[in-house]
Amino acid sequence: MVNGNDIIGVLGGMGPGAGIAMSEYIVNNTIAGRDQDHLPQVLFSLPGAIYDRTGFLMGKVKTNPAFRMAEILGKMEKVGVHVAGIACNTAYAPPIFDVLLNECNKKGITIRLLHIVEEVGFFIQEYYPWVKKVGVLGTRGTFITRHYDLLQRDFGVQTVYLTEKEQQRAHLSVYHPAYGVKADPVLVSSRARQIFESSVASLKKRGAEAVILACTEFPMISEDEYVEDMPMVNSSLALARALIREHSPGKLKPWGAACLR
Amino acid sequence: MVNGNDIIGVLGGMGPGAGIAMSEYIVNNTIAGRDQDHLPQVLFSLPGAIYDRTGFLMGKVKTNPAFRMAEILGKMEKVGVHVAGIACNTAYAPPIFDVLLNECNKKGITIRLLHIVEEVGFFIQEYYPWVKKVGVLGTRGTFITRHYDLLQRDFGVQTVYLTEKEQQRAHLSVYHPAYGVKADPVLVSSRARQIFESSVASLKKRGAEAVILACTEFPMISEDEYVEDMPMVNSSLALARALIREHSPGKLKPWGAACLR
Repeated sequence: MVNGNDIIGVLGGMGPGAGIAMSEYIVNNTIAGRDQDHLPQVLFSLPGAIYDRTGFLMGKVKTNPAFRMAEILGKMEKVGVHVAGIACNTAYAPPIFDVLLNECNKKGITIRLLHIVEEVGFFIQEYYPWVKKVGVLGTRGTFITRHYDLLQRDFGVQTVYLTEKEQQRAHLSVYHPAYGVKADPVLVSSRARQIFESSVASLKKRGAEAVILACTEFPMISEDEYVEDMPMVNSSLALARALIREHSPGKLKPWGAACLR
Repeated sequence: MVNGNDIIGVLGGMGPGAGIAMSEYIVNNTIAGRDQDHLPQVLFSLPGAIYDRTGFLMGKVKTNPAFRMAEILGKMEKVGVHVAGIACNTAYAPPIFDVLLNECNKKGITIRLLHIVEEVGFFIQEYYPWVKKVGVLGTRGTFITRHYDLLQRDFGVQTVYLTEKEQQRAHLSVYHPAYGVKADPVLVSSRARQIFESSVASLKKRGAEAVILACTEFPMISEDEYVEDMPMVNSSLALARALIREHSPGKLKPWGAACLR
């Protein structure tokens, strides 16, 4: 039998580039000298099946994407996944994530689903312990639901956000059909990059000591560890490292710049 | 129901970086303006389950990796995969691939499995039609079985190889536990890069007009489209584009440099 029930699952497709990046972080953050040392993982990237998360949170999409996500997790469990992460921050907003947990419960799915905000909290605590105030750079969905405020409650890390107007621009740097990173994750537009940089600068002005890339698309705009002398906390990478830790803690690479890709 | 039976499968893990690269090529070669336009795909990367392909061909590993690969394809079919590719050239060597087809047949697996050598043939025919002699740069397994000679028979393209001694060095640039690309696909060693370059130069001396990167790990050493003024034919990319063509021909990006990542 292949691998039993010991597989890491990445629920991707939101967007597809972000799911693949998370799979890649898992590989590149694993201590391994040959193929067979690497961890078993599957990536499910079924973007057409999953309604837009921010669209749902804003009332523009009626069906909760959680239902399809639960169906996919059911498929993952059938092939042996026992721990999984969702490569999308907006999917962790309570109006989606709580329904997802409830659906999994109803379907009898027992996959352990890690929580991206919690893992970002642990990540900051471990690698940037001096940070007490973080900027949250995410989609409009994440901006509205403020689910990153969990950091304040559970980790004593205060959150700061963009203004309403700045947030609109940041959202478009991901979603705009011409210059957004979802439209072309390979040749990132200079406009997306410029919005990213001015958003980071603005969060710094508001007191941020680090910035959470709280949309899995942002690391495709910039892979720099530091911008404006502040650490960029890559939420996908934090979740990928947590998946390794849960599966095989002894195989997690020590933290360093090489882990960023 | 999520996506029915319409999913592209990537059988990865050989090595894990090569499987992820193939998934990424599928995304980056698809015409799409938003998440939902992208094609449904799953990547199964279970490296611990699959015995080394070259090791088997050289008689150092007793069990044919084909058996585990067939089991994984069975799992893929259960979640809805209908067309798949294997992100490993050596797996297409007849002593492995023929057994795999036979196993799939016995198990009643009806996934359509594309053939990497055939797709490289179509790729050369379409994008580099003037090429009549190609260098084959692969693992020792591919060197021994010469399954790329199919190109001669079916596409009228002659193949040239490295010498025995050069081939040994090229193999180590992939497999060596210290400087091989499988050991660290992120920070590629200068030695691996240097062996790659001298191998390409040597194939050119032997009359090659293009070089097939006939191991899915080589594009991690070099992403350049041209080396020594010869096109580098990326076998993973050829297979990824073929998977798009089989699934949704209208969504295949026109060929150009932007498709290389």
